[in-house]
Amino acid sequence: MPMYSLVTGGAGFIGSHLCDHLLKLGHNVVCCDDLSLGKKDNISHNLNNPNFVFIQVNILDRLSFQDIFQNYKIDTVFHLAANSDIQAGSENLDRDLTITFNTTVECLYAAKNFNVKSFVFASSSAVYGRFDKDMKETSGPLNPVSFYGAAKLASEVYIHAMLEQTNMKAWIIRFPNVVGERLTHGVIHDFIKKLEIEPKKLEVLGNGKQKKPYVYVSDIVRGIVFSLTTMTEKYNVINIGVDSQTTVTSIAAMVAEEMKLSNVKFNYSGGEGGWIGDVSKFQYDLSKIHKLGWKASMSSDEAVRYSIQQELAYQHK
Amino acid sequence: MPMYSLVTGGAGFIGSHLCDHLLKLGHNVVCCDDLSLGKKDNISHNLNNPNFVFIQVNILDRLSFQDIFQNYKIDTVFHLAANSDIQAGSENLDRDLTITFNTTVECLYAAKNFNVKSFVFASSSAVYGRFDKDMKETSGPLNPVSFYGAAKLASEVYIHAMLEQTNMKAWIIRFPNVVGERLTHGVIHDFIKKLEIEPKKLEVLGNGKQKKPYVYVSDIVRGIVFSLTTMTEKYNVINIGVDSQTTVTSIAAMVAEEMKLSNVKFNYSGGEGGWIGDVSKFQYDLSKIHKLGWKASMSSDEAVRYSIQQELAYQHK
Repeated sequence: MPMYSLVTGGAGFIGSHLCDHLLKLGHNVVCCDDLSLGKKDNISHNLNNPNFVFIQVNILDRLSFQDIFQNYKIDTVFHLAANSDIQAGSENLDRDLTITFNTTVECLYAAKNFNVKSFVFASSSAVYGRFDKDMKETSGPLNPVSFYGAAKLASEVYIHAMLEQTNMKAWIIRFPNVVGERLTHGVIHDFIKKLEIEPKKLEVLGNGKQKKPYVYVSDIVRGIVFSLTTMTEKYNVINIGVDSQTTVTSIAAMVAEEMKLSNVKFNYSGGEGGWIGDVSKFQYDLSKIHKLGWKASMSSDEAVRYSIQQELAYQHK
Repeated sequence: MPMYSLVTGGAGFIGSHLCDHLLKLGHNVVCCDDLSLGKKDNISHNLNNPNFVFIQVNILDRLSFQDIFQNYKIDTVFHLAANSDIQAGSENLDRDLTITFNTTVECLYAAKNFNVKSFVFASSSAVYGRFDKDMKETSGPLNPVSFYGAAKLASEVYIHAMLEQTNMKAWIIRFPNVVGERLTHGVIHDFIKKLEIEPKKLEVLGNGKQKKPYVYVSDIVRGIVFSLTTMTEKYNVINIGVDSQTTVTSIAAMVAEEMKLSNVKFNYSGGEGGWIGDVSKFQYDLSKIHKLGWKASMSSDEAVRYSIQQELAYQHK
């Protein structure tokens, strides 16, 4: 019976790129997605691949989800299904709880029942909250300020507790902002949409000085697989990212430039953060993954610009 | 309109003592409990008190629970409703998730909707997992090894994130093992029950060398109120306990002695911990609460012995 990697949220932005990458590496892939945030378009190019299976399922439907493990021998779970929109989660309090945390718990139950060997979780820099010292894998206590971050950290904590009950190993991979083809929301996406409607002025949330690292999606999926093959502890935590940052104003300028718009007036809503729970400036410590031998191929600015170009090119296909 | 303190799990072991203490201090108290773990016996002495209201409700029934806040002006929530049995939670994975974590989330929703000022959460030393350095309030990252500890830590994390959205303040109070009148389970309770059935031998889980601090319930409720009135940050974390410990073998010996049994043979099941996720030896750092001016009145051994005496006296009433 062939072994499969399960990618939850596999029709989503990062998930679909991870499916592509795993297939290239020769894995058999079961991609599951409820298509609430994911899109079938993101995986349509793989549907005829004999090593690829797509299953539309809501992970919270326990019986249907565990059917996957009955029907395919899953040795690794890549749990990427989650709320991907921090801002939306600060308005609808159930959103992160249900889509991020509860799905993690269900994946853990299935992993325990079916003796999964490896559990990989897409965590986030948001678990650090407004940590004011080095944001390292060994730092704590961690106090997230968004429900997005809280649901990611609660998931990490539950994964750790589950290891006590099983022979499974776990990889907690903390991402910063990820950009690239198939992006569905976030600042780049918003700016392009707004400027298409009104090319002379652009509303910018906050004071524009928010400064964050943006990593390209192909780097992230490469980093996930690198972490899984390089780190072999029972419980592995790793920051993956890029050691440069981009301000929101720079992103606005790059979007305007790539859209060939000049004299766009930026109107700032003001304040340090863009929304409740926004961590407006951060850079986390990447020394662990750099020491292991991995580095992002694109800088934050390069990743942002390339993502803008890809999104504009895709729209005009 | 008079202000009320709400005690969730108020008919439980610690909750009922907290109700007693708050009433003594002149609070108006709404006690809510679904009576799944709590007992009406624990609060029957307060039912005629005009400052005391008992409401039987399942916190997860959102509408019924929020009705309490509609009907009474709640300024402080003491959230004690939770799974109280670590061992049971390692066998039934949904137990801590539902009874501890999900109830916390519902309390937070209600607290936000009804502008509660103060939120007090009964957390646990279990959030520290097998932390091998000083177990301080500033220590981390925290990696619980039981679902009991994971649900407590996930709750703490959600409470912190909620503070971002409200003017509420929060107190996270981390308890060790608590003993005393109305105790419903745990090692003292188990040993008494076993010796009543078979007075000549006693099965002891683990190797008996598990060594933990036991604090008396009257000390804990005094400590909760002390913390609430002494610490005034937006987010306050405090270890409350006792700076001595008692081994499981000592407890067994004290139970036998208090039951006037001699020549009891202790049969150890072996191994360091009593069950999956048991943290067999710990002592956390109490310097923060000691500096604030609070100390437990009974040592761990005194608390254990007095609890045994109380339980035996209660049975023979």
